[in-house]
Amino acid sequence: MSDLPKFVYVNECGPREGFQFEKRNIPTPDKIAFVDQLSDTGIKAIQFASFVSPKWVPQMADSDAWVDGIKKVPGIEYTGLWLNLQGLERALGHRDKLTITPGFSLNASETFSKKNTNRSVAEKLDEMPGYVAKFRELGFEKLDIGVAVAFGCNYEGAISTERVMSLLRDQETRAKDLGMKIGEVTLYDTMGWGNPLQVKRLVGAVRDRYPDNSVCLHLHDTRGAAIANFIAGLEVGVDRFDAAVAGLGGCPFAAHKGAAGNICTEDVVFMCQEMGIETGIDLDAMIEAGIKAEELVGHPLPGKIKVGGNLATYRAKASAAAKAAA
Amino acid sequence: MSDLPKFVYVNECGPREGFQFEKRNIPTPDKIAFVDQLSDTGIKAIQFASFVSPKWVPQMADSDAWVDGIKKVPGIEYTGLWLNLQGLERALGHRDKLTITPGFSLNASETFSKKNTNRSVAEKLDEMPGYVAKFRELGFEKLDIGVAVAFGCNYEGAISTERVMSLLRDQETRAKDLGMKIGEVTLYDTMGWGNPLQVKRLVGAVRDRYPDNSVCLHLHDTRGAAIANFIAGLEVGVDRFDAAVAGLGGCPFAAHKGAAGNICTEDVVFMCQEMGIETGIDLDAMIEAGIKAEELVGHPLPGKIKVGGNLATYRAKASAAAKAAA
Repeated sequence: MSDLPKFVYVNECGPREGFQFEKRNIPTPDKIAFVDQLSDTGIKAIQFASFVSPKWVPQMADSDAWVDGIKKVPGIEYTGLWLNLQGLERALGHRDKLTITPGFSLNASETFSKKNTNRSVAEKLDEMPGYVAKFRELGFEKLDIGVAVAFGCNYEGAISTERVMSLLRDQETRAKDLGMKIGEVTLYDTMGWGNPLQVKRLVGAVRDRYPDNSVCLHLHDTRGAAIANFIAGLEVGVDRFDAAVAGLGGCPFAAHKGAAGNICTEDVVFMCQEMGIETGIDLDAMIEAGIKAEELVGHPLPGKIKVGGNLATYRAKASAAAKAAA
Repeated sequence: MSDLPKFVYVNECGPREGFQFEKRNIPTPDKIAFVDQLSDTGIKAIQFASFVSPKWVPQMADSDAWVDGIKKVPGIEYTGLWLNLQGLERALGHRDKLTITPGFSLNASETFSKKNTNRSVAEKLDEMPGYVAKFRELGFEKLDIGVAVAFGCNYEGAISTERVMSLLRDQETRAKDLGMKIGEVTLYDTMGWGNPLQVKRLVGAVRDRYPDNSVCLHLHDTRGAAIANFIAGLEVGVDRFDAAVAGLGGCPFAAHKGAAGNICTEDVVFMCQEMGIETGIDLDAMIEAGIKAEELVGHPLPGKIKVGGNLATYRAKASAAAKAAA
């Protein structure tokens, strides 16, 4: 583990991934205040709004007001999600607040692609020209690509490394034909199937093929492996991770199988702190945000460090006690 | 990760570590039935009774009846806990059911030693001759040793590798003076302070000093690092772990800081399954035991796989669906 990254870049996506699952309606002013609280933690990227149909995701119906309401802190990338060109157009209406990221991805599972996006994988790939035209118009030269359900699928079972690599090549080829280079590559463990051996194998294959591109991991904690997969990612040089404050993204106590949250932001920050890796994030402030998230959703969330306590505090107390005794 | 162990030996200690924390009184017949259920999972070691004062741990007052009641399955090591020679004598009264393990350990934290055992570390070490006399009388030639609070202490802060090694040497020297060799070495992360780098560093130091002794890790999940520490242990060749079904051992939702449970048995078994490591344990049966544990204690327990679901089941379903479609 001698060559762990010196700095880990965390993309907070709890307000987007998490709130869309909740039954309780969270008032827009509370959502705005929550993003502002996250902005004060030192985090450098926050994904919060979702420009999708309010028919499908009613919890995100107030996304325009939410974006309008936040205080934009310089140096932070605020992003939203879209799943079609209409959504992208809505996001573009908020360029005073939002950073537009030129991203595209495919699902490794045909079944999930149809269920989640109502399109086959091939149909989804055929939508790339529309996005690329827009991104080129905006001045982008590189397209970020990714594969969702890259570690396994509740419907289709195991997903092979070859399948993931082939979907990345398909995106790369199409993007090049459209005059764009490849930027960041994101691998999504959408259904929490990954294990550390698989993370190292899959990331290794991606690094071999795309040695100059940064790799980002999006790890769900459905089966308790997320933090181990995070460490495995670090060990093969990954330094960009999506994460969700308090482990937002699902309710593990509602037998809501498969809906468990993303890896917990403050647990990731804690782990980095303990291993001497910088994140630029104030752990205590992020723990406070995690506690706030629980208050907003009205039930316990899975993050551990907000209960277990920051070791820096214990070390400081012990050191003060030792000095007092000396 | 090419030289991970082929087989991992899990010592189930949930019924001992877990039930002692619970406010609800669990009837003795339920406790007996629970150990019998665990005996049917394929696990090879179960620690359940505690021969300690009922004044301090009333939940363990029925330990004698509990031990008498279980069905002893051949090939399983059933053990109990004692904290003094009186407790050991009580355990010896159950040799028809219990395996006596010749163990000794010291706390790395002076403060915790006094709080937990009412003895200083030196006073505890001075008790070794009494135990060793008993163990030699029973025919043992090797003493298992260990260090608790080996990864950090909520009272004293960081614990150095040197401190742990020095406490192991103290035990080794004393045991040799008393005519016993050293057996297994257990490192206890009693307060959940460990991280993967530290696990590798500390286990590495122990392996260097005791290359022929097996090492066991006891990992609490207070801060969400247990599964990552487990993987780190595997990577440096550790193949013996304590674990607790469902993550028994504390109530993470009662702000009961520092009392979080041991690493979850079924999550460990799942992780081994996914990485091709044998445990001899039937994962589905252990998940059922985890669900039973929640029923007995009457509140959610932290294990993840009992909610997320065994991937072997998803793979089998996907494979059957693919065959039906072909």
